[in-house]
Amino acid sequence: MRADSKPLRIGIAGLGTVAGGVVALLRNNADALARRAGRPLSLVRVASRSPKPEVDLNGAAFTTDLNALHEPDIDVVVELIGGEDRAAELMRRALQGRQAVVTANKAVLARHGGELLGLAQTQGVALGFEAAVAGGIPVIGALTRGLAANRVQMVAGIINGTSNYILTAMSQHGASFQAALSQAQAQGFAEADPTYDVEGTDAAHKLAILAALAFDMDFRFAAVYTEGISGITKEDLGYAEELGYRLKHLAIARQGEGGVEARVHPTLVPESSLLAGVSGVMNAVWIDGEGIGPTLYYGAGAGAMPTASAVVADLIAIARGDALACCTGAKQQAVLPIERVVSAFYLRIPSRDAPGVFAEVAAVLGRHGISIEGAIQRQGAVRSGDGGESWVPIIILTAPVAEGAMAAALQQVQEMPEVVGDITRIRVERGLT
Amino acid sequence: MRADSKPLRIGIAGLGTVAGGVVALLRNNADALARRAGRPLSLVRVASRSPKPEVDLNGAAFTTDLNALHEPDIDVVVELIGGEDRAAELMRRALQGRQAVVTANKAVLARHGGELLGLAQTQGVALGFEAAVAGGIPVIGALTRGLAANRVQMVAGIINGTSNYILTAMSQHGASFQAALSQAQAQGFAEADPTYDVEGTDAAHKLAILAALAFDMDFRFAAVYTEGISGITKEDLGYAEELGYRLKHLAIARQGEGGVEARVHPTLVPESSLLAGVSGVMNAVWIDGEGIGPTLYYGAGAGAMPTASAVVADLIAIARGDALACCTGAKQQAVLPIERVVSAFYLRIPSRDAPGVFAEVAAVLGRHGISIEGAIQRQGAVRSGDGGESWVPIIILTAPVAEGAMAAALQQVQEMPEVVGDITRIRVERGLT
Repeated sequence: MRADSKPLRIGIAGLGTVAGGVVALLRNNADALARRAGRPLSLVRVASRSPKPEVDLNGAAFTTDLNALHEPDIDVVVELIGGEDRAAELMRRALQGRQAVVTANKAVLARHGGELLGLAQTQGVALGFEAAVAGGIPVIGALTRGLAANRVQMVAGIINGTSNYILTAMSQHGASFQAALSQAQAQGFAEADPTYDVEGTDAAHKLAILAALAFDMDFRFAAVYTEGISGITKEDLGYAEELGYRLKHLAIARQGEGGVEARVHPTLVPESSLLAGVSGVMNAVWIDGEGIGPTLYYGAGAGAMPTASAVVADLIAIARGDALACCTGAKQQAVLPIERVVSAFYLRIPSRDAPGVFAEVAAVLGRHGISIEGAIQRQGAVRSGDGGESWVPIIILTAPVAEGAMAAALQQVQEMPEVVGDITRIRVERGLT
Repeated sequence: MRADSKPLRIGIAGLGTVAGGVVALLRNNADALARRAGRPLSLVRVASRSPKPEVDLNGAAFTTDLNALHEPDIDVVVELIGGEDRAAELMRRALQGRQAVVTANKAVLARHGGELLGLAQTQGVALGFEAAVAGGIPVIGALTRGLAANRVQMVAGIINGTSNYILTAMSQHGASFQAALSQAQAQGFAEADPTYDVEGTDAAHKLAILAALAFDMDFRFAAVYTEGISGITKEDLGYAEELGYRLKHLAIARQGEGGVEARVHPTLVPESSLLAGVSGVMNAVWIDGEGIGPTLYYGAGAGAMPTASAVVADLIAIARGDALACCTGAKQQAVLPIERVVSAFYLRIPSRDAPGVFAEVAAVLGRHGISIEGAIQRQGAVRSGDGGESWVPIIILTAPVAEGAMAAALQQVQEMPEVVGDITRIRVERGLT
């Protein structure tokens, strides 16, 4: 332990499950943490709306007054109250008073990260948020420290456990989206209102944070293109597997020529990709850097103890004097509109079971400069369409193409009289191996 | 950038491929690195046996005198000369003179890590060695920072790219060990004398480092049990796959009750494990912590630029004032002798194609308390034995058992007259999913 082994004095805002995990780690691992931090981590005060006598605070004071966290006997405020405005205000006030801040609040960072990090830098204090993305997986540390020598080219993550649980259940048990969602809700892996998770907002918050760090840019949540998984069918999962792919809900940020791509959507990944093997509620983040090449970080993306593990890692870093994240916002980077993003596509086109339809679809795609790289055409796999008519799905894998060109082509295909239902299109990422 | 933005003054010992990568990163990414480091990273001097005029040192001085690195105009000495005694001496002298040290030298750390880290701590300077294990994958950072709040339970790594390349080639192309080794040598992935890699010494060096950090213990290279892959046959790979496993050369450290397991050997892992999908020269490290649960870190384990990426990450951390690794040697931990390690086993027993042999083998195992959990018995898969006799392989998967008991049982099985050749036994790890 160093000569200046004054304890790091900690105040926690909130006393939910993650806060309970932080309290437990500080209490149970005190000696090891002090050794790693160079000084004791001392929990001074916990502020929350209502007391929880069942949580052993190990002698720390309890208060219902959040303001009590800004007293001068607190060095670091740990923000675990959630929500947006009140949490942002708490962090601002702490930083203004030269208290360090540790938070797991991705929603606040995705919108106000630039302002808060700027304030932290001006005040010369640390702002730690390892817990805000992918739970306990040290992916913020990887971007800001381990890979700091690299120009990052791409980040691609499975960063919402609920969506991944649902897609895994659909793939492994042939469940429908609704059945898999109900199962996730029954297991406590999805909220009663699952919109925030399954429509991609949560992943978009996290992606805005990852992109800011990876590309030295501002936090640009509003510019993230977001598509959820509620439209995914088990048929699409089956065709994808037949073509050698797995369907994952990916958050992707990539350095392009005219700016940064930032998008969250269902994505086919090659079955040989490690991302294809990430099942259930687990998370993984793929980071490709010039220098290091491809890397992957895998682990629990949520839960009390994994998230608490990340919070306490930030506390240890602060105790050791590490300034934590730096360097966002240094570059003016445009976020590319989705129309300009280039990717390969999987298309499922419900069409009349008539000769020549595939050739006509191929001709329309060709006129828009879109090459076909693979296809599944069921001979005689006739089904009953909405109008009782017989139809077949035409499944096509395309070469990479700009979204704008694909949209224009699909509008024409959709208008073909032989096309009897809505076309499904899912993006394909082949580079993740 | 901070007010005290004095450059960090760097000296490099050695001018091989990794040093060339470090020089290139410092030259090409100077602005981004300065932003992340809070001050410029300035290469002052390079010392090496012979000059390499083709390497652009970006204005840094070149000398053939290693002593010139200990001049007071150098803040950090980057040790990339390799070897043991001379490298250890260089590091010692730097630390004694209160210069920070960054090294990629696993052989020195595996033997002298405790002494060198102790010296760094006494002198109040940093010793960075992210590059010593798994190339650019920030696994040292994960253990010392990202997971610092956790009690680590287990580390299991594919940390030698040469061995993994050979096993991948054997598995994917049905090559023999010798053929796969020749292919690796032709591609530059194996040395002319491959012993250091294929017999596990390199992995054991790295495991000694990982275990020291994971379990707060001393660096104990000499106590690591080490078995290479030169005895692996393509037949064993085939049977393993039939049983739902893949064969990997794993380095495993686990906290046991009576001490720490530290062992490097061929290992069957479930095909559903992410480690099973790590192919070719890539590395991956699985870390299971109380709190975070299982995590995995994947990437290039060797090569000039990935290793240079890790070296420069350490330089950035030092520039920012991070003390880097801490806390090894705090606990007196015994390393368990291999006889006391418990694991499941795959057995291949070449035996006469006669009735009752399997039952007799099972009876011997049973008498030693060893349960059979799976088996493959080929009816009529008769082959020509050494003496021209017909025989079949009996393939058995056992329940977990102490190595000592397994050795005693196998000695008896080996002596059965129906057993016509050497028994192959390979350890099985089922917990890696």
